[in-house]
Amino acid sequence: MKDTLFSKIIRGEIPCHKVYEDDKVLAFLDIGPLSKGHTLLIPKEAKATLDELSDESGAALGRVLPRLCRAVRKATGATAYNVLQNNGMAAHQAVFHVHFHIIPKTSSSGLGITWPAGRLEQEDGKALAEKIAAGMRS
Amino acid sequence: MKDTLFSKIIRGEIPCHKVYEDDKVLAFLDIGPLSKGHTLLIPKEAKATLDELSDESGAALGRVLPRLCRAVRKATGATAYNVLQNNGMAAHQAVFHVHFHIIPKTSSSGLGITWPAGRLEQEDGKALAEKIAAGMRS
Repeated sequence: MKDTLFSKIIRGEIPCHKVYEDDKVLAFLDIGPLSKGHTLLIPKEAKATLDELSDESGAALGRVLPRLCRAVRKATGATAYNVLQNNGMAAHQAVFHVHFHIIPKTSSSGLGITWPAGRLEQEDGKALAEKIAAGMRS
Repeated sequence: MKDTLFSKIIRGEIPCHKVYEDDKVLAFLDIGPLSKGHTLLIPKEAKATLDELSDESGAALGRVLPRLCRAVRKATGATAYNVLQNNGMAAHQAVFHVHFHIIPKTSSSGLGITWPAGRLEQEDGKALAEKIAAGMRS
């Protein structure tokens, strides 16, 4: 995989406003924040998308997320926030190293979301769930 | 905490299109999908927001996410997708039990995102990172 901005940040070749680091993950402020406190959490494992990541890196990210969300809330006073992780250019991914955004939401700042919900039909749902479940077992 | 729709699904009182279950987490199809394959991953621990969740439940969610994303990709053919977790009504949370959305993105379906990025000034970033880092240590 191609070296990214985030690999350079992990190696300390590019500075960041670090908020947390352990042997598996790193968290730092986004320099193009959607709101005050917009923070990134990344694995040290260099993979472009979440589906490529090891279970161990996934678990390490998940373990830190609650504490990081508490720390962002406490530092900013935010009561609402979105956690977002984008995969692929079509899904708004810009740096091709897995990263979770923690984005405080206020009335005037944060992530903009539109939610064009459909409806899952019973038969379609049954067939699709079985396909995904088969993938989980393989 | 108030009983939610998701607690009832975990207990089997309300049916779902299940795709995965272990002792700590459950995954099933969203019945109001933004795209084909829109899946929810929830902890069995009943907490409203991610900052309230235990490290152990966070780790269990994170460990399953890569495999679940692979299974959703494989079943749907999606090459791009968003993982989203909303906290608070202002951040578009509707069910007050932690849940991660896995939402395939195609040219005609999926999550709509707007990204009003600002710019982090050096001094502001330094002060804010130190505040969040202090929260991570406490």
